[in-house]
Amino acid sequence: MIKRYYAIGIAVTATLLIPTAALASITPVLQPGNPFDPDSPFARLYLPQNAPKGKDKVGPAEWTHAYGSPTHNAGFPVSAHAPAWVRRGVQWNFPEARAWPLTDPTPFGAQVDGVKEALPVQTQFYGNALGVSMVRGVVYAESDDMFAYAINARTGKLIWRTSPVGNNLMGNPLVIGNRVFLSAGSVSFNFANVVEFKTDPDIAGRGKDISYNGIYCLNSKTGKLEWYFPTAGDAMPTPAYAYHSLYISTGDGNVYRINASDGKQIWKTHVGGIANMSSPAVWHGRVYVGMSVVPGLYALNARTGSVDWKGEIPGAVNTGMGDVSPAVAHGIVVMDAVANPKIVDGKPTMVTLVRGFNAKTGTALWTDNMGRGAKIPAFKGGVPMIHGNVVYVGSPVTSDYDAINLDTGKVLWTWHVPHPGPAGAARGAPTYYQHMLYISTGPDLYVLNPKNGQEVGHYHVGGRFGIVNPTIVGGTIYLGNSWDWVNAVPVKDVYSGFNTAKD
Amino acid sequence: MIKRYYAIGIAVTATLLIPTAALASITPVLQPGNPFDPDSPFARLYLPQNAPKGKDKVGPAEWTHAYGSPTHNAGFPVSAHAPAWVRRGVQWNFPEARAWPLTDPTPFGAQVDGVKEALPVQTQFYGNALGVSMVRGVVYAESDDMFAYAINARTGKLIWRTSPVGNNLMGNPLVIGNRVFLSAGSVSFNFANVVEFKTDPDIAGRGKDISYNGIYCLNSKTGKLEWYFPTAGDAMPTPAYAYHSLYISTGDGNVYRINASDGKQIWKTHVGGIANMSSPAVWHGRVYVGMSVVPGLYALNARTGSVDWKGEIPGAVNTGMGDVSPAVAHGIVVMDAVANPKIVDGKPTMVTLVRGFNAKTGTALWTDNMGRGAKIPAFKGGVPMIHGNVVYVGSPVTSDYDAINLDTGKVLWTWHVPHPGPAGAARGAPTYYQHMLYISTGPDLYVLNPKNGQEVGHYHVGGRFGIVNPTIVGGTIYLGNSWDWVNAVPVKDVYSGFNTAKD
Repeated sequence: MIKRYYAIGIAVTATLLIPTAALASITPVLQPGNPFDPDSPFARLYLPQNAPKGKDKVGPAEWTHAYGSPTHNAGFPVSAHAPAWVRRGVQWNFPEARAWPLTDPTPFGAQVDGVKEALPVQTQFYGNALGVSMVRGVVYAESDDMFAYAINARTGKLIWRTSPVGNNLMGNPLVIGNRVFLSAGSVSFNFANVVEFKTDPDIAGRGKDISYNGIYCLNSKTGKLEWYFPTAGDAMPTPAYAYHSLYISTGDGNVYRINASDGKQIWKTHVGGIANMSSPAVWHGRVYVGMSVVPGLYALNARTGSVDWKGEIPGAVNTGMGDVSPAVAHGIVVMDAVANPKIVDGKPTMVTLVRGFNAKTGTALWTDNMGRGAKIPAFKGGVPMIHGNVVYVGSPVTSDYDAINLDTGKVLWTWHVPHPGPAGAARGAPTYYQHMLYISTGPDLYVLNPKNGQEVGHYHVGGRFGIVNPTIVGGTIYLGNSWDWVNAVPVKDVYSGFNTAKD
Repeated sequence: MIKRYYAIGIAVTATLLIPTAALASITPVLQPGNPFDPDSPFARLYLPQNAPKGKDKVGPAEWTHAYGSPTHNAGFPVSAHAPAWVRRGVQWNFPEARAWPLTDPTPFGAQVDGVKEALPVQTQFYGNALGVSMVRGVVYAESDDMFAYAINARTGKLIWRTSPVGNNLMGNPLVIGNRVFLSAGSVSFNFANVVEFKTDPDIAGRGKDISYNGIYCLNSKTGKLEWYFPTAGDAMPTPAYAYHSLYISTGDGNVYRINASDGKQIWKTHVGGIANMSSPAVWHGRVYVGMSVVPGLYALNARTGSVDWKGEIPGAVNTGMGDVSPAVAHGIVVMDAVANPKIVDGKPTMVTLVRGFNAKTGTALWTDNMGRGAKIPAFKGGVPMIHGNVVYVGSPVTSDYDAINLDTGKVLWTWHVPHPGPAGAARGAPTYYQHMLYISTGPDLYVLNPKNGQEVGHYHVGGRFGIVNPTIVGGTIYLGNSWDWVNAVPVKDVYSGFNTAKD
């Protein structure tokens, strides 16, 4: 043990003695956990016997963005020749490291924070903030419990778990080839940046000197750490993958392009603001990045990092775009924010504004006001999804979902979440799948007819969905939640009209 | 499993449906980890075969304060009849869950934060911020890795580890009878409180809505959770135990007295400010509490919670008392702070002021200026220790330790830490033991002659000691460090003149 100990120590020291300026990324020698104790609770656990085999490797071949793609539509039909379990769907509930009972409607912090505040705290610090990625028969999840998980999509059994750093993992794992990318960060500020925010908000950064932030590259098969790209600000958003690169936005207002193979930095642009949970989208040579505090939508040249244009939503409040990842399709970027705060009957209220931008020029094409409602905790807009020429998006202040014509901004219908709960609902992106619209909000799954917004299905999962979208592959809906579970629900249990195809 | 699942869910729900106002504390039904998965990485691990037996149960019978007592002197001689290993001392290094190589001088975050900033970040987020408690042959430690550990003091083997919540554990575990008390919290603010600090700093609280804070009561033998007292603000400081109660100070400016048996609140007083890492001391019916941001030393009536007096240190900077736990003895409370910032040669500098207060009246008895030095990261004073009528205290801005007459404030000698490193040294309380003074600072242990401040011993441990004091029992020095290790070092290896007593 002594020999190994010294060997590891010297190797790390040598790496770190290279002048910092010469390093664009760091390759830590130490694997997660503790090289001195294979039984460390943070040691990587790899169970190869649980990996999917042969025809079970279904679903997308890669996962390049939060919510699966720049459109955020995470529905993936399978062929009629797919295995029966894929078409019919499977049911399982995988308890992550701190799983809170799904049958308990009350979040952990309710006594001291109240239920209303404790719900977003549970999303930010307890379980999964986003939903899950699904690639070739494996469900990948990141959790606030600081672990990432690879789970067999058919059986719900763990393939690997790992915890490369003491920080929250709040995104969708990206999966490209044989690599998985995690992003680490939390909503926290240290005192120096609290003071900085008072004197000069432009240079205060979220996540600075708060634990360890950045991007972790793992082997997708084993979960083994390949490299780490550290960032000063938090890296809560999910990166976007394109052009063999990862595009990252951080809590100190930076956007990075790094090489997805080795983590080397290609460019870095400081646009200002705080990235929060807004994940970038890459589309036709541009990176679209939402920033908070000074709320803005930035279009950067994906090759050079120069800012092509900046879009705004009039009256957006400081955190208003915080959870909103821009959706892009057909030359239009859709962004939204809570905006225009006003005291009504003695209580703070806001509206949600949705705006379509010309993806090339940044010209605002239309703006849709989804209506005014009570200020909710962690006040932010919902995540938009584009399918065909329709935008589907929620408004947490009204707990409504709207269908909006992508070209004109005309509202096609509005649907109100039946039981939004005290913290409001309608945060997550819907999923359009086999002519129906699936929504995960509060503790529930809903199915709407996308033509008219009529509810045609409902299913109670339990826990809470934060900014979670349903990831649907074949006959199964895969969902992470704030209670620290990954869940598989058969589509036919949620929507009885679902056609599982012939056996 | 289903049956168990429902049973647990219903039990928790029932508990939480009791009206909040009726609850003074909460007893969670869920044990740490995950009741649905006994292999959860956060599951409590209990290895009874490693517990000390018979005569090996040496050391103090209880641990009531940070640094062991209101004087902060953690030296515990043993009788000449103690087992040989106790008198001669033992050597081991216990790697905690994320142990970083002790041979690596560079902290984990150096590349992105720089070494100077990465050192305090490692103390705040990676390993042990304070030293360890030692009771009846067991070393107890809390770590930023979110685990608490009970380790056999003789063998260095794990007896139990547990992680009751996703937050940093930064104090000394208190050990009273068959109970261990942990305090959970971190240095983080959420955005709402960042904004609040800008508009009304008096009501901004550290730790509010940041994960889960409060006091955890465990069975000392097994580590099993008995109850949890949640607090809104962070509970980074170590509570003080007296009168069958725990006295707690929090990041939102509150001081609590709770019943140490059941966690029921007895009183709560809002004094304002932020507790930071200043741990209360109880002495002769009063609780002494240091607060930051509005820096102040408060003396509260331990029975009622009313404030008897408030003491100040002139010119103390906002975080100046942040790491300073008041020491009390012989009717005098000693507190210090970094103060009077001034730009010298274009660089920010500060002084450390140490002040003695009449414990009963709060009258300032004397003030010692330890001199001016460069502003260091996380700028705070050092932790004072009182032995006899002498105060021993460090100044991180000068990396000096002073010996000061407790009654007059007269400086008896000054000793400069030979290799303070870029972040400054001299944070931890010294330990007076068998006529010598032991200091853990930077990666090193030093031994001074307390009569004149001459260095008589030195030992390189590695890693970094944050606000760590040497806990000495018999012939062994026990130390936690920021590299996530608990270390046992024979006293005779540090000070060759140490008398291990006859075998």
